[in-house]
Amino acid sequence: MALRAAVIGPTGYAGFHLVDLLLRHPEAQLVYLASARDKLPDIRQIYPQLIGRIADQVAVCRPIDVDSIADVADVVFLALPHGAAMGYAPALLDAGLRVVDLSADYRLDDVAIFEKTYQQPHGDRQNLADAVYGLPELFRQQLPGAALVACAGCYPTAAILGVAPLINHSMVKPERIIINAASGATGAGRKLSEATHFPQLNESFGAYGDIGFHRHQPEIDQVLTRVAGRPVRSFFVPHLLPIDRGILATIYLQPATADVTLGELFEAFADAYAEEPFVRVRDDLPNVKDVRDTNFCDLTVRLSGPEEDPIVTVFCAEDNLIKGAAGQAIQIMNLVFELDETAGLL
Amino acid sequence: MALRAAVIGPTGYAGFHLVDLLLRHPEAQLVYLASARDKLPDIRQIYPQLIGRIADQVAVCRPIDVDSIADVADVVFLALPHGAAMGYAPALLDAGLRVVDLSADYRLDDVAIFEKTYQQPHGDRQNLADAVYGLPELFRQQLPGAALVACAGCYPTAAILGVAPLINHSMVKPERIIINAASGATGAGRKLSEATHFPQLNESFGAYGDIGFHRHQPEIDQVLTRVAGRPVRSFFVPHLLPIDRGILATIYLQPATADVTLGELFEAFADAYAEEPFVRVRDDLPNVKDVRDTNFCDLTVRLSGPEEDPIVTVFCAEDNLIKGAAGQAIQIMNLVFELDETAGLL
Amino acid sequence: MALRAAVIGPTGYAGFHLVDLLLRHPEAQLVYLASARDKLPDIRQIYPQLIGRIADQVAVCRPIDVDSIADVADVVFLALPHGAAMGYAPALLDAGLRVVDLSADYRLDDVAIFEKTYQQPHGDRQNLADAVYGLPELFRQQLPGAALVACAGCYPTAAILGVAPLINHSMVKPERIIINAASGATGAGRKLSEATHFPQLNESFGAYGDIGFHRHQPEIDQVLTRVAGRPVRSFFVPHLLPIDRGILATIYLQPATADVTLGELFEAFADAYAEEPFVRVRDDLPNVKDVRDTNFCDLTVRLSGPEEDPIVTVFCAEDNLIKGAAGQAIQIMNLVFELDETAGLL
Amino acid sequence: MALRAAVIGPTGYAGFHLVDLLLRHPEAQLVYLASARDKLPDIRQIYPQLIGRIADQVAVCRPIDVDSIADVADVVFLALPHGAAMGYAPALLDAGLRVVDLSADYRLDDVAIFEKTYQQPHGDRQNLADAVYGLPELFRQQLPGAALVACAGCYPTAAILGVAPLINHSMVKPERIIINAASGATGAGRKLSEATHFPQLNESFGAYGDIGFHRHQPEIDQVLTRVAGRPVRSFFVPHLLPIDRGILATIYLQPATADVTLGELFEAFADAYAEEPFVRVRDDLPNVKDVRDTNFCDLTVRLSGPEEDPIVTVFCAEDNLIKGAAGQAIQIMNLVFELDETAGLL
Repeated sequence: MALRAAVIGPTGYAGFHLVDLLLRHPEAQLVYLASARDKLPDIRQIYPQLIGRIADQVAVCRPIDVDSIADVADVVFLALPHGAAMGYAPALLDAGLRVVDLSADYRLDDVAIFEKTYQQPHGDRQNLADAVYGLPELFRQQLPGAALVACAGCYPTAAILGVAPLINHSMVKPERIIINAASGATGAGRKLSEATHFPQLNESFGAYGDIGFHRHQPEIDQVLTRVAGRPVRSFFVPHLLPIDRGILATIYLQPATADVTLGELFEAFADAYAEEPFVRVRDDLPNVKDVRDTNFCDLTVRLSGPEEDPIVTVFCAEDNLIKGAAGQAIQIMNLVFELDETAGLL
Repeated sequence: MALRAAVIGPTGYAGFHLVDLLLRHPEAQLVYLASARDKLPDIRQIYPQLIGRIADQVAVCRPIDVDSIADVADVVFLALPHGAAMGYAPALLDAGLRVVDLSADYRLDDVAIFEKTYQQPHGDRQNLADAVYGLPELFRQQLPGAALVACAGCYPTAAILGVAPLINHSMVKPERIIINAASGATGAGRKLSEATHFPQLNESFGAYGDIGFHRHQPEIDQVLTRVAGRPVRSFFVPHLLPIDRGILATIYLQPATADVTLGELFEAFADAYAEEPFVRVRDDLPNVKDVRDTNFCDLTVRLSGPEEDPIVTVFCAEDNLIKGAAGQAIQIMNLVFELDETAGLL
Repeated sequence: MALRAAVIGPTGYAGFHLVDLLLRHPEAQLVYLASARDKLPDIRQIYPQLIGRIADQVAVCRPIDVDSIADVADVVFLALPHGAAMGYAPALLDAGLRVVDLSADYRLDDVAIFEKTYQQPHGDRQNLADAVYGLPELFRQQLPGAALVACAGCYPTAAILGVAPLINHSMVKPERIIINAASGATGAGRKLSEATHFPQLNESFGAYGDIGFHRHQPEIDQVLTRVAGRPVRSFFVPHLLPIDRGILATIYLQPATADVTLGELFEAFADAYAEEPFVRVRDDLPNVKDVRDTNFCDLTVRLSGPEEDPIVTVFCAEDNLIKGAAGQAIQIMNLVFELDETAGLL
Repeated sequence: MALRAAVIGPTGYAGFHLVDLLLRHPEAQLVYLASARDKLPDIRQIYPQLIGRIADQVAVCRPIDVDSIADVADVVFLALPHGAAMGYAPALLDAGLRVVDLSADYRLDDVAIFEKTYQQPHGDRQNLADAVYGLPELFRQQLPGAALVACAGCYPTAAILGVAPLINHSMVKPERIIINAASGATGAGRKLSEATHFPQLNESFGAYGDIGFHRHQPEIDQVLTRVAGRPVRSFFVPHLLPIDRGILATIYLQPATADVTLGELFEAFADAYAEEPFVRVRDDLPNVKDVRDTNFCDLTVRLSGPEEDPIVTVFCAEDNLIKGAAGQAIQIMNLVFELDETAGLL
């Protein structure tokens, strides 16, 4: 019998891609779309791409009614704004549903850091303590049967996958990890803004935000610190690209010792990812176009700069809406329910 | 009487913009277009934008005949591929013309570095020794009356303007200067290539080339070393943007001392550029769109990261074809001939 | 003494380009920016491109105070939303200013058609009756000394310039003139909308609006009817392009007689435009890129289809913000004040 | 047992999408990639998107060896340049393979028209006579078991689907059918050209080719004539869009009688396509973005213009690489082998 899935918050870009991926999934069935909007939308009016692919009774969003969802679904995806998921997760978990949350609500272990980063109190500390951090390549063993999984953020996924194997093998220093990242416009969401007004963004390129204080930096540091077993400190600078989709992280690191070789760096990645279906360690430089509309994260590494003071550069590319959001959520669902990890994703 | 200008190599993008700017220049007159092609092109067939703006007798390219050029022109712009300019410059100089070269041929003081970087012998060492490096904001005093000026490269202009004031004031360390740069597609020229095939480049983003060995890096290091009076070593990584024009350099530096403040960093830039007509020190983050089709370089600086180990980030934006090529060449011409520096450029 | 110009409504895209062109104009001086906003903006905060190019006292918008404007200016440009210009024009005219209006308020002779098209009453019928329709190529003789000029709309400029010579020479039938047009995103203005949200518009293409009822169609028909001396009826369908700037009109017409030749069609255009500085009759097909950031309208004509029932196709390209708005307004100013028509525009 | 599929010519864009779709297809298996290149490529080097998705032994192209292909495959897709398919089809058919050809070689019934249109002799008249025209919505009944199917061209698919129901019901006149079409850049193929050089195409828009003589026009007219049972004559004008993918056809038609209503027009489309899984008759205007990466053709119709001389406008959008090429080929394969028509396509 197919796994029955509900999506709460399908009208955002991540929500749409959850719907799209679930409709293609060979072992899952989309049964319920739920929206917090007063006027419940038909998802096909927002995303005409879905016309002819989704049944009428599913396409029209219903209220976020926990009992109704629990009646028909096994798993629920929360694709809500940061701060909103924690309002629904407790009841959904109590009703016996598996919950995969795409927001930041359950990503940060430390409540104080969450509250400082997202400027709001955390309303569900108990589940926060139990939530699994949803980055399968690092924490796969915690996923089977997990009740609540917090999908890794879009930027953190690229950054962490690019750094973790080197930190883990102590091949790079844990400080001054410079993550120069760029994202396509869907990363900024469906909400209208000057920054994403077409004549403003088209043919443009620039960094954005409060440099050095992006909300994804604590998430990156928390996970890398856990991997390293000692404090890791990165420096994250995001840029906005005039394209729809894709994240590229260009990461500058300092070798831990002077004698590290490029071969060893590649070996560290090979060790980490040889068996991973969605990480491709490449010889040539990754490009967001190569991973568009896929769940892959492509990466490579270089060793160059002055011989006496070389620099390790890692390049990671992913689709922010797939491996950085909806695809990763489906990969997590597959692992939680012990399906083939790649089901519906290749 | 108007300054009479010739352009050798007008068919490339930098050449076109020289033509465009000269046609608008209030004190210069475009008198001669010269091409090395067998079949001499009418520049209007390559750039229909010029139809109705340029006289017939100028529009049709003529051979690169030094005597003919010297008969009618005061200044000649060389917009030729690297390696070609040095074949013409000696004769043009001998004929009494002022020469503004947009290629790399006369940028590097050290012949050995030139030959290693561009993989070819240098055929004009004498003029190389006398050429002025054409970055007015740093070397303005050498420009009036200069016979041969080598315009700074597109990437080096952004990188050097972003770093020089800080290096000059010893506010940052001279090593591990990480220059993460991105350029629009015109930077790759008019020559067809897979990398600039529309379906390949559109909606893409990635780094390119041999990481750590870009030919602009020795140029950047040479100039910064001259500014600092001690060896400076940068690490330059270029990316290709799916836009027509613009370079953004995001530069990561280490403060020389722990107590440097953001105010001091801004002061260093203000000191350097307050009187500069084409450098705009901004509070907010620069964007290539703000400088499109202008000769401005926009920059700002941030100080963030861990308190005990802060990072200085500089952001510089320019139009690679204007401040990074043709506009800078016109600015140089204005200074060589002691015209108003901004003539034809605002 | 320079002509002194004021711009009311400089914060929109047309307003910005008026400012940009006036700053470059050799015989005009920008003296006053006026805005209806409560919080008067500094134009440089909205358009950082202008930093370093405009004097502080001009850059900060002032209230729309007719007396103050009349004190310092000779000419005023109205770059306001449709319906707003008619509220200011009477007083500005009474104060002795020449007025160039970029809105639709004074374009339509017939009040009833205006009111039906723009769904609002017309509040200034007297000046409407006296306003000159600002399309210099057709109505140049009415411009010198004109008090109030209504700049032709962006789409109408391309459409009318493409059809008028053929209608004028009775070479095509006056009905079933199909105008298939496409515009860049700036045509939709600075106001945020779903249609111009980057992830929505990027990589998209489609028609928009109520097909057959675009508000520019009555304007096109009015002018072509005046040119023909008999009723002309066009059918206008607009599309939105994922680019910043440019309009292309592809116009399908029926030859008036079976024996019209391609040579005659070209002759009609040559007759009409040989002396026009801003219309380029081309042999090859126009492209919006060739006219970007210029005041040119490029056009060509083809004759093909079945021999017994051939079709005349005209292609017209212009920059919607220059020839379609700000450039045309400057061209009109030049003619009203009997300056060189091309001043500041080549 | 899975249907075994081979692709000859997988290195072009249509070929890549065949590979991509076959890899996802639940009932087909990709077994053989064949290339005419001397140096046989690994498809993953050309399309890194495929890394990790395709078996090594399939990814490396093999020679076009009919016996080897016949040994392992049931169906072969020809994704070759026009003129090349007819060199392979006879032997492939003789070997018992079903052949789905994506080129124009078997689309035109009339050899004389083929030879005039493609400027080359036709080398396989016998199979030409037997080939089925591969547009399932019109000729579905001929597909089950068909030996050779010529997939409809990209532009013709949109144009024919937009016109056929109206012609079929005699609701529009069979002449002066104006098809104003625009295609994304992949339509021009992988071959480098000035027209698809990024700085040339980006931010551009224009028509192309010899207006009125596009090679797709005879194909459109042949099929519409067959549908109508009397001569139909269209006029086709293509434009190039600065996007990767998508075709929009805006079609202008004359009602056959003055009293046709919009309701009747919609009914004609509903009659024709109500049961079609890949044609979506929409109320609102189609956009290429809504059909990107899908096998859908979206269309709608409008009736407007002067009451006494109204115009029917049809808008059709499709993805030129899916419904216009690879997706349609898979849809055809499904029908030839009597699988679910939508298998692998939703």
